[in-house]
Amino acid sequence: MASNEVKLLSSWISPFVLRAKIALNMKRVDFESIPEDLSAKSDLLLRSNPVHKKVPVLIHGQRIICESLIIVQYVDEVWASGPGILPSDPYDRATARFWAAYIDEKWYPNIRAGLVIEEAEAKKATLEEITQGLALFEDTFTKCSKGKKFFGGDTIGYLDIALGCFLAWLRVIERINNVILLDEAKTPRLFRWAHDFSAEPDVKSDMPETDKLFEYSKGFMLKLKALDKKK
Amino acid sequence: MASNEVKLLSSWISPFVLRAKIALNMKRVDFESIPEDLSAKSDLLLRSNPVHKKVPVLIHGQRIICESLIIVQYVDEVWASGPGILPSDPYDRATARFWAAYIDEKWYPNIRAGLVIEEAEAKKATLEEITQGLALFEDTFTKCSKGKKFFGGDTIGYLDIALGCFLAWLRVIERINNVILLDEAKTPRLFRWAHDFSAEPDVKSDMPETDKLFEYSKGFMLKLKALDKKK
Repeated sequence: MASNEVKLLSSWISPFVLRAKIALNMKRVDFESIPEDLSAKSDLLLRSNPVHKKVPVLIHGQRIICESLIIVQYVDEVWASGPGILPSDPYDRATARFWAAYIDEKWYPNIRAGLVIEEAEAKKATLEEITQGLALFEDTFTKCSKGKKFFGGDTIGYLDIALGCFLAWLRVIERINNVILLDEAKTPRLFRWAHDFSAEPDVKSDMPETDKLFEYSKGFMLKLKALDKKK
Repeated sequence: MASNEVKLLSSWISPFVLRAKIALNMKRVDFESIPEDLSAKSDLLLRSNPVHKKVPVLIHGQRIICESLIIVQYVDEVWASGPGILPSDPYDRATARFWAAYIDEKWYPNIRAGLVIEEAEAKKATLEEITQGLALFEDTFTKCSKGKKFFGGDTIGYLDIALGCFLAWLRVIERINNVILLDEAKTPRLFRWAHDFSAEPDVKSDMPETDKLFEYSKGFMLKLKALDKKK
């Protein structure tokens, strides 16, 4: 492998892979996306990420980088010539990191649960947690964007990527449950942001289409449920 | 409050607070440590960190920064004149971030459980998880330190702080359970590292003494157990 060749072990359904792809797109990095079959993981994936055994994995020459938010930061630091992904001010960076960590630790588990849970009361509570999170992000958006289009200002940045990667799955959960979670009346700024983010060329080229993801999700939900039962 | 005054909402028993203190010490930042009573949290803490309601919180003039690893990065970025805490190479930074996240997400829960669990089989399994983690860190140390004294090289860095903050509690768990977890024979490099890290002046001044923490832990374990029962 050439010393600077870039490969990404990926999966079109993974919001975490989407983060890495958007970052690479923003920096105009020429990379090869290597699709993984997540029900039969390749030796390359298991060897590259023996700790978590998950996509995305970025292979940059001899260097292997795992974990989506760490990959995004790495891409931002290595390809410094493109638009900045992390905010330039240390305090803004700390704020973006804080909310990105919140999304992964506190909010995302509800997105996953929203695909699996069947029992009516538990499902209602999960959907409620998702909307409460969105209300919090509306408030965060107002503070971070400072009147501009994105969390990151005039261009998409770290927090846009951290949250925006879940939009297609959010729409699938809305369709499965026949509810509106990202409500224009309740979270108007976030609603507008979701539209603008999805329309960005660096995002649009890799964000899964809702119809296709919805069709896929039917089989995927069964797999997730089986996985949870095995635990 | 003066625009650049630095305050840290803290607790002497918290390994996460210790991370922030070490970073501030390394950068020679003059700061006021404000002790919090974690069983009766102050309005200042609840107002400053409404999402997690946890120490440490760094108050830098009008800026409020929460979450220990984010604080360490902020301190490194704002007080750039002192020794670098994050490695200077993007790949080394990604590696340090990967292991720091692993410590918090996968390894630390066993440290906490090691203080609470009473049932013999579950306790044995938890202590085993802790030692397996240490074996992994021995291997990581070999790769990261490149023959030098610390994960960060010649001076302590991000990963040293992320892991080293738990050393006093690790010793307390050893004493409570009458076992050796950080074994000189099995993990000689990490054993030596733990000694060197604890002896660093910027660490030593704030790391709790094992005897004092052990005495404190007797009451603290009862509180943790009560907390877990309430969940």
